[in-house]
Amino acid sequence: MDIALNTTHNFLSKIATNDGHGENSPYFDGWKAYDSDPYHHETNPSGVIQMGLAENQLCFDLIQEWIGNHPEASICTPQGGFDFKEIALFQDYHGLPEFRSAIANFMSRVRGSRVQFDPDRIVMSGGATGAHETLAFCLANRGEAFLVPTPYYPGFDRDLKWRTGVELIPVVCESSNNFKVTLGALEEAYDKAKESNIKVKGLLITNPSNPLGTFYDKETLKTLVDFINEKNIHLVCDEIYAGTVTRENEFVSIAEVLEEFPTICDHNLIHIVYSLSKDMGFPGFRVGIIYSFNDTVVNIARKMSSFGLVSTQTQHMVASMLSENDFVDNFIKESRNRLAHRHDMFTRELAQVGIGSLESNAGLFFWMDLRRFLKEPTFESEMTFWRTIISEIKLNVSPGSSFHCNEPGWFRVCFANMDDATVMVALERIKSFVHETRMLEIKTMAKIKTKKQCWQNNLQLKLSSRRLEDIMSPQYSPLNSPMLRAQN
Amino acid sequence: MDIALNTTHNFLSKIATNDGHGENSPYFDGWKAYDSDPYHHETNPSGVIQMGLAENQLCFDLIQEWIGNHPEASICTPQGGFDFKEIALFQDYHGLPEFRSAIANFMSRVRGSRVQFDPDRIVMSGGATGAHETLAFCLANRGEAFLVPTPYYPGFDRDLKWRTGVELIPVVCESSNNFKVTLGALEEAYDKAKESNIKVKGLLITNPSNPLGTFYDKETLKTLVDFINEKNIHLVCDEIYAGTVTRENEFVSIAEVLEEFPTICDHNLIHIVYSLSKDMGFPGFRVGIIYSFNDTVVNIARKMSSFGLVSTQTQHMVASMLSENDFVDNFIKESRNRLAHRHDMFTRELAQVGIGSLESNAGLFFWMDLRRFLKEPTFESEMTFWRTIISEIKLNVSPGSSFHCNEPGWFRVCFANMDDATVMVALERIKSFVHETRMLEIKTMAKIKTKKQCWQNNLQLKLSSRRLEDIMSPQYSPLNSPMLRAQN
Repeated sequence: MDIALNTTHNFLSKIATNDGHGENSPYFDGWKAYDSDPYHHETNPSGVIQMGLAENQLCFDLIQEWIGNHPEASICTPQGGFDFKEIALFQDYHGLPEFRSAIANFMSRVRGSRVQFDPDRIVMSGGATGAHETLAFCLANRGEAFLVPTPYYPGFDRDLKWRTGVELIPVVCESSNNFKVTLGALEEAYDKAKESNIKVKGLLITNPSNPLGTFYDKETLKTLVDFINEKNIHLVCDEIYAGTVTRENEFVSIAEVLEEFPTICDHNLIHIVYSLSKDMGFPGFRVGIIYSFNDTVVNIARKMSSFGLVSTQTQHMVASMLSENDFVDNFIKESRNRLAHRHDMFTRELAQVGIGSLESNAGLFFWMDLRRFLKEPTFESEMTFWRTIISEIKLNVSPGSSFHCNEPGWFRVCFANMDDATVMVALERIKSFVHETRMLEIKTMAKIKTKKQCWQNNLQLKLSSRRLEDIMSPQYSPLNSPMLRAQN
Repeated sequence: MDIALNTTHNFLSKIATNDGHGENSPYFDGWKAYDSDPYHHETNPSGVIQMGLAENQLCFDLIQEWIGNHPEASICTPQGGFDFKEIALFQDYHGLPEFRSAIANFMSRVRGSRVQFDPDRIVMSGGATGAHETLAFCLANRGEAFLVPTPYYPGFDRDLKWRTGVELIPVVCESSNNFKVTLGALEEAYDKAKESNIKVKGLLITNPSNPLGTFYDKETLKTLVDFINEKNIHLVCDEIYAGTVTRENEFVSIAEVLEEFPTICDHNLIHIVYSLSKDMGFPGFRVGIIYSFNDTVVNIARKMSSFGLVSTQTQHMVASMLSENDFVDNFIKESRNRLAHRHDMFTRELAQVGIGSLESNAGLFFWMDLRRFLKEPTFESEMTFWRTIISEIKLNVSPGSSFHCNEPGWFRVCFANMDDATVMVALERIKSFVHETRMLEIKTMAKIKTKKQCWQNNLQLKLSSRRLEDIMSPQYSPLNSPMLRAQN
């Protein structure tokens, strides 16, 4: 068996055989569990509900209405068909000029039009996945590294490391500090790399954060920029969730920091990753964007984009859609509102049964605190409990360990990839589980007491259901966490 | 300046600064020359005609007719719009099942339905560009190599080498043998690599060949398969021009060889690259395909396809179009006919002024023999003459050196990216050039003779134009080549 494995290893490449794709993570295992038993309200009402997928399904009615009113946006309609040949043949890696302009316009409007983007710096890629790999290829050699604050998106291990040979070094963030990135943690990670003779070439942040659903305030961003400028390393800002921020005016793009403080750093160090997969909800269309302030990176990344250009059919449609400002502004506003409503409803309901989450107002997910449910504060316990969630509560949420979180007991919950009815089913299942757990706890406590105080036996078993509900309300809950999200 | 360069080199990656993208080749310089002065029959009639672009523009009328009749193929029409959300959200790297089935069906029909393809082995990639890189990442480690018969497509240096670190080792093919690949040449290249301590992991062929426009006969394919099987190395067959073969029944896909001789080799060694950029003329849609007979490669390449998936909007349209057999069969037949007509007309006209080409009947180009026009049989002379072609004849054809041809004087001429009228302009320019060159030759000869025989002076200058034309006809031409394409 060993011989066969070795033969395979020689026969194919190390990359093909090194598991660097990362699909053996629980993050993807959860997807498989969902795939094998997917919930459907009629055909499989006891199936697994997919809450591990950061999809944005809440505004497709607006998009479909626009599509219906704009047949010219398609090269497959009589109105747009005269462009078919021209579009099908267009393979310039600069992209359609109108596509780049529309993307620059959209990026600006998503950021409240507080900053402009130059269409000539828009580089295409195969989704944010391709954008991250391209930047890693451009900025670092094999064995060199990027710092990444934890918890971080599991796909980064595939995107930045697998084929490039680049390393990711965690910057440890902690719940005691609401998972904020501190200068101390950055310096510690940097020094640790240095001690291991690993050259650090950059810092990668997601802003807003996946999985936290939080975003960086301006002061923190300035601290990060000072840090990378002092070290003369790159800063890659993944802003693919910029349009999901519910408190619009509070979000600060790295582009705004550069505009407000132009001398704060060497602009050649700053690169943004963007995408239409989250803010527009178009992951199937594979629109990834690199926006670099470094001319050489723009030039080289554009040449690399040949490995993952956006279909011109899609470029054409996106160009039409995102250059129409009334539609864009209304879409962004409505999307923010619907996401906020869903987020608040979900976290409020959970809070009522004593389940807390990190305070957040961005992303298509929140960061749920289930630390109190673990038998022990270990990742083994987290995995045991996660298996319970999948197999008994029948929800695919993603365990914090798959996001390289350093504290067991946190889970990412996606809330925008389902309809309202499914949300209610998911909430009911969670509530039932909490209820049953409390019942079990009470029974266990009762047994303990029984052993100690046999004479109280009958009394314990006569607790009324009314009394149980009282115990389970938040004010009585032992599960209350200081991280519990404030309901505004 | 050196310091600045070094700083840049440290600052970015070696890949970003090593010129491995290959755009400094004359192949791309020619495109730039075209871009700066593009021919237009009305607005710029003396501009450069683009004959360096292997586009297939001859059958868009058929495609546009189909599109007009199938509004349901677009997710942006009322008829197809109800799928918009489902398609926009679909991001499974397996691809839409109907897309994979349609591609497998098309690949089979392009090969005369003599062989079937399994939809479960269809892996997407960002064009053939992405497909080649993905296979290189799967099959070879940095520093390991693929053998490639020359002349070969210049983009391979970017696709297979740039980001992977894989090497390409030329298998030298010669005009004396019509550039056929021989076992001797294969063994020589393999041994040379071995002597240099380079591990050879595969052989890459293009069948039909770009730039030659020829394809491999069954016996040669069997020889290649025997060779790779004996060496236990991979065979990557780029068949992206399979549908351009004008003598349909003579083309043999590697898949047919495996079907006819199932025990000829370990099927795990065989991989096909396909695309819709050439056979359908859709380079803008970025539909690249890897079809591997190796289960592990299918599995890993599919995971890698995340870096360059095909837009689901395009998958959906392509699935509709290529699953309709009447359309597919008619398109393939009509496309072959139109390509054959264009190819034959072009080469026949050139032959009439004494310009030969390698006999071929596939591709969107032919391999033009201008060896007799070079002052010396060197690549410097080839480049000098190529500059003349660009600046004086105002045609962007691609010099053989950019295809790693080992013999100076060959040029690739693309003929399917323009309309009939432009073809005529190009031909007229070539004819004029040949005419003027002959005039110059005659004058030069006259001067030589003048010096020797002053008394003949007047007679030489009185040659009638009728006489000149006679001299320039093929039967008198000193430019006649044994490679001159037979006109069938």
